[in-house]
Amino acid sequence: MKVGILGATGYTGQELIRLLRQHPDVELAYLGSSSVAGSDYETIYPHLYEQSTGTLIADTDLPDLDVLFCALPHGITAGRIREFLGVGAKVIDLGADFRLVSAEVYQQWYNLEHPEPDFIKEAVYGLPELYRKEIQGKSIVANPGCYPTATLLSLVPFLRKGMLRPDSIIIDAKSGVSGAGRGASMGTHYSEVNENIKAYGVAQHRHTPEIEQEISRAAGHPVVVNFTPHLIPMTRGILATIYAEVCDGVEEADLRTCWQDKYINEQFVHVLPKGIWPQTKFAYGSNQAFLQLTVDKRTGRAIMVAALDNLVKGASGQAIQNMNVLFNLPEGRGLMSTGIWP
Amino acid sequence: MKVGILGATGYTGQELIRLLRQHPDVELAYLGSSSVAGSDYETIYPHLYEQSTGTLIADTDLPDLDVLFCALPHGITAGRIREFLGVGAKVIDLGADFRLVSAEVYQQWYNLEHPEPDFIKEAVYGLPELYRKEIQGKSIVANPGCYPTATLLSLVPFLRKGMLRPDSIIIDAKSGVSGAGRGASMGTHYSEVNENIKAYGVAQHRHTPEIEQEISRAAGHPVVVNFTPHLIPMTRGILATIYAEVCDGVEEADLRTCWQDKYINEQFVHVLPKGIWPQTKFAYGSNQAFLQLTVDKRTGRAIMVAALDNLVKGASGQAIQNMNVLFNLPEGRGLMSTGIWP
Amino acid sequence: MKVGILGATGYTGQELIRLLRQHPDVELAYLGSSSVAGSDYETIYPHLYEQSTGTLIADTDLPDLDVLFCALPHGITAGRIREFLGVGAKVIDLGADFRLVSAEVYQQWYNLEHPEPDFIKEAVYGLPELYRKEIQGKSIVANPGCYPTATLLSLVPFLRKGMLRPDSIIIDAKSGVSGAGRGASMGTHYSEVNENIKAYGVAQHRHTPEIEQEISRAAGHPVVVNFTPHLIPMTRGILATIYAEVCDGVEEADLRTCWQDKYINEQFVHVLPKGIWPQTKFAYGSNQAFLQLTVDKRTGRAIMVAALDNLVKGASGQAIQNMNVLFNLPEGRGLMSTGIWP
Amino acid sequence: MKVGILGATGYTGQELIRLLRQHPDVELAYLGSSSVAGSDYETIYPHLYEQSTGTLIADTDLPDLDVLFCALPHGITAGRIREFLGVGAKVIDLGADFRLVSAEVYQQWYNLEHPEPDFIKEAVYGLPELYRKEIQGKSIVANPGCYPTATLLSLVPFLRKGMLRPDSIIIDAKSGVSGAGRGASMGTHYSEVNENIKAYGVAQHRHTPEIEQEISRAAGHPVVVNFTPHLIPMTRGILATIYAEVCDGVEEADLRTCWQDKYINEQFVHVLPKGIWPQTKFAYGSNQAFLQLTVDKRTGRAIMVAALDNLVKGASGQAIQNMNVLFNLPEGRGLMSTGIWP
Repeated sequence: MKVGILGATGYTGQELIRLLRQHPDVELAYLGSSSVAGSDYETIYPHLYEQSTGTLIADTDLPDLDVLFCALPHGITAGRIREFLGVGAKVIDLGADFRLVSAEVYQQWYNLEHPEPDFIKEAVYGLPELYRKEIQGKSIVANPGCYPTATLLSLVPFLRKGMLRPDSIIIDAKSGVSGAGRGASMGTHYSEVNENIKAYGVAQHRHTPEIEQEISRAAGHPVVVNFTPHLIPMTRGILATIYAEVCDGVEEADLRTCWQDKYINEQFVHVLPKGIWPQTKFAYGSNQAFLQLTVDKRTGRAIMVAALDNLVKGASGQAIQNMNVLFNLPEGRGLMSTGIWP
Repeated sequence: MKVGILGATGYTGQELIRLLRQHPDVELAYLGSSSVAGSDYETIYPHLYEQSTGTLIADTDLPDLDVLFCALPHGITAGRIREFLGVGAKVIDLGADFRLVSAEVYQQWYNLEHPEPDFIKEAVYGLPELYRKEIQGKSIVANPGCYPTATLLSLVPFLRKGMLRPDSIIIDAKSGVSGAGRGASMGTHYSEVNENIKAYGVAQHRHTPEIEQEISRAAGHPVVVNFTPHLIPMTRGILATIYAEVCDGVEEADLRTCWQDKYINEQFVHVLPKGIWPQTKFAYGSNQAFLQLTVDKRTGRAIMVAALDNLVKGASGQAIQNMNVLFNLPEGRGLMSTGIWP
Repeated sequence: MKVGILGATGYTGQELIRLLRQHPDVELAYLGSSSVAGSDYETIYPHLYEQSTGTLIADTDLPDLDVLFCALPHGITAGRIREFLGVGAKVIDLGADFRLVSAEVYQQWYNLEHPEPDFIKEAVYGLPELYRKEIQGKSIVANPGCYPTATLLSLVPFLRKGMLRPDSIIIDAKSGVSGAGRGASMGTHYSEVNENIKAYGVAQHRHTPEIEQEISRAAGHPVVVNFTPHLIPMTRGILATIYAEVCDGVEEADLRTCWQDKYINEQFVHVLPKGIWPQTKFAYGSNQAFLQLTVDKRTGRAIMVAALDNLVKGASGQAIQNMNVLFNLPEGRGLMSTGIWP
Repeated sequence: MKVGILGATGYTGQELIRLLRQHPDVELAYLGSSSVAGSDYETIYPHLYEQSTGTLIADTDLPDLDVLFCALPHGITAGRIREFLGVGAKVIDLGADFRLVSAEVYQQWYNLEHPEPDFIKEAVYGLPELYRKEIQGKSIVANPGCYPTATLLSLVPFLRKGMLRPDSIIIDAKSGVSGAGRGASMGTHYSEVNENIKAYGVAQHRHTPEIEQEISRAAGHPVVVNFTPHLIPMTRGILATIYAEVCDGVEEADLRTCWQDKYINEQFVHVLPKGIWPQTKFAYGSNQAFLQLTVDKRTGRAIMVAALDNLVKGASGQAIQNMNVLFNLPEGRGLMSTGIWP
């Protein structure tokens, strides 16, 4: 398969390259960059010195491709979607342009009129564990956000079965700094982030409508949630701690069984044994996700925790998983490494 | 004032010493240790070399004292409370023995029959911003836990005025590793904690009944809450993110005004300007606490965030603040340094 | 190949497992443990949940094996070497028992009489880039220490050619905490290590005689060096900064050419382009090593820097590389992943 | 004393403010900024909210002052030195403009013609432990760099007495990220610095001539050294590991005695007991410096280690110490807090 990457020098682009090197069916045919075209890739990332990654090419000179991964700022992929599909490629968009089915909601949260609303219906929300069948045959895959991946893997099975009260959902999430991308700013300055935690985007984060869309779909009616992300002094990893009231008669064991039934054949989602709580480092560098829950009988709430690597299952690894689904390859191909510990 | 410390070699004991050195009215008259009596203090903490901190003395040989700070494992302070009061000292207990007014609840959460239940009524819950007047004149001050301090500073003003629904409260808290104390274990091993987050004590943490006791008192009726602590890869700091439904008619501005009215004359509690969210590093090494909130109108919930240094306002600093209150000293004496940044 | 690991639950044992899973020719036939025999491996390392790693077996019950990796405290592998060779296995020792050719030097630095000095001559110092041919056909491979690997890759090519003055060598090395192993102690306590650096084992570290032995061999006469390790607040990685006077007439370009000639066909050792200095994170989780140097004409000294992952090229990855050499497999098999960035 | 700060919003400016607040003789009369004049200081540093720090004033509007601290990029302080002295102030320059006595050397290393070479002779190199008497009465104090402070405290006593061979000196130093200042760049991006070490400025760092100037002065003849700084994943702290050959007949005990004699009455420099090696965290947030050494008899070299906080003894704390010396105040005034541990 001839594979291309647009936005190849960002963190998710670079992580795609790391993972795709281990994929036996892939030829890295095109690394696109708008800013450093002409450079050898290893001049940008010296840890890849002598790894023959290739030369960065202007992002306007797309060759024919089987798959194009877009790791671009929002608005750009949608604006050029006709061009991208025109090279014969399936498009896997790591950005937000095709995640929201409503162009209106997109405009509201991203302050941008959707450039190509007619193409939204060509896209599928690419969370394979939830929409595997819908992904096959689509031309555009909207790769989910990192926070939504952790959240939806936890909640959707329960909401589909009506086991939790949708209007009671609170998601308190914690992310490493790499989620902010490679741009240097006070918000990513080591001395300002180290030995420090803060909440950010409180009640305003753009992953909120994405979570709500998918939760509403699972619940069968519109749902709003509270979602609060926090910046944590670590590079990789997302932990989502999720609270929701259980419906009458639902016990902890019922929830556990529901998860287990859902994920028993999934190679990337692990419902841990009771009492073992997920740690983000379990997933470091791997496409694994880990789940645990308890029900606090005193309050009637379930407490769910999901952990994954924001750059792998939360971005580039999941994108490759989607590629495997699209092309009927074994879903784990190229993705079977375990987390790096310690 | 002749001041003694029992458990002087733990992190909170050592932090008491750091802070008390800056207090002009204090003579460090007694440093008690059960394990390393006879050692010079700087052999335990070499960063205090040539600081003349003193020699550790057997924890059984208490001299006459004006104040005794107890930084001991739970059960011990209560078991020896008659002895401690017998040296003429006010006792400020950094442990949990006198925080809970119900010996039964104590037994339930700490798996220990309270050794001296009759003395509980001699104690006051030492959160000065909430119970300043009650503290004066008491012989035992139960210094609050780190998580409860952050939580109660946020919630109590609202609950006293009936502005939030008590049964909707969820506290998602994040702590640095120093909160686990100086003991070496897999849970404090650098390689296991670094680049990692986890929840722990989910639905079981011992600060839960302490939070509930004080919230119930403020609400005027029994309340249960969800409280989930997380371990974060940093040494110091607690951030509590708190969710609760606002009562009908309550707006964000009402909550902000309530906080501001409550804390306007407090030198250690700061309601930040709208839009500035607390960071734990704001308080690094200082007795300051920082608050912020918003109301998400879509869900009807208030989201409150409190940040402080778990070893200062969450432990030793607050203990000294309590000492100042007990002895009618200016409450900020010895505690006026600002956080270390960066 | 049937592969066994003794000391499977330590960090290097666990890292062997992570890497060997990616090796197509390996069957993990035996995971030995002295302390937790009978446990499923994933109960020790929950991040491997559902990865079918296997059950830990008493370290006395060795099956027939092709290779046995020993990740044991010093003294144990040597003491049992007859037994280990008796199961038909090539022994790759990640410990120190067979690194020193002199039993006397071993006793001096390890405070232990070597249990089986007659077997030392059966062993080879397993640094493939330096001793590839000597490794083939040996029954015992002494896998080098992490610090010596970084040091010797830098120095040996120059010393073999007489380009540096051997008596001027100073090695200032910096290591992540995982090098101290999985044991919990004050020296690995997060709160004591984070935001902190210290030198340790100054002029006394046990890797000193190992470095000196190999440097002496390269120089052709006995050499002593200064070697100072430091503990750095990170989990993985070793950086060695090495100083030595250049011999008369030797220029920076000569040294660079010497390294390049030596390593041009090596897939794991990379002489970076002039001006790009190694960072430990370049090698995170991979078997790569990175080198750079300059000559300060003002002082007449070369400054060399080597970076690698202490648990991979500095331990388990190199051990697998040695296995590949022993069995005439392509040397990079199972080891071709690049470092994880960021 | 009316005190002003130019460059008040950088890390060293902010650290001056933190420390000066604790100084009883100081009125913070002027906070100058070239970029954010007119802003309240706490809008830049929210952790100082409600601390009444003051308003930032254009850096051109200097009032009359007793002391002016200049925390400015090199070249600016020298260029405006007539103006600064004109407001009646003693100038304490935290930058490099007056550290080098040779305008030629300055030009060579800073690529800038010195703007006011005639004023260099009005300045003193402000390392109080070495030049206390020379500081008194001067109008300009050149506050030393962070690396030189750690290095010179270690070496100068020995060189003055001819105990070490000057031409054998190698300084391998490690610094936290705050030393790079508040500017956001790839070099300070959390994800690029965390879990990582690198050398930088190898054989080219601008602190080299400063170290050499002072070492030469102590040795009585021109000396060149190797100085290699490293960036460490922590915010604060400098550790210098220094190697030098001992002169004939000099024993470890002689060196120790020399240090002890020199520093016995110094309140900020501590020669630790034999076997206790300095850690940077010993000095966190304080003006303390810690020293230790050994002599490796096998190689004939002394290994010295110095640790301090780069922003305090390495910058702002030492600047205040210089102010105290200039104004005949007790030298420790405002600087007596101990390091924050853990």
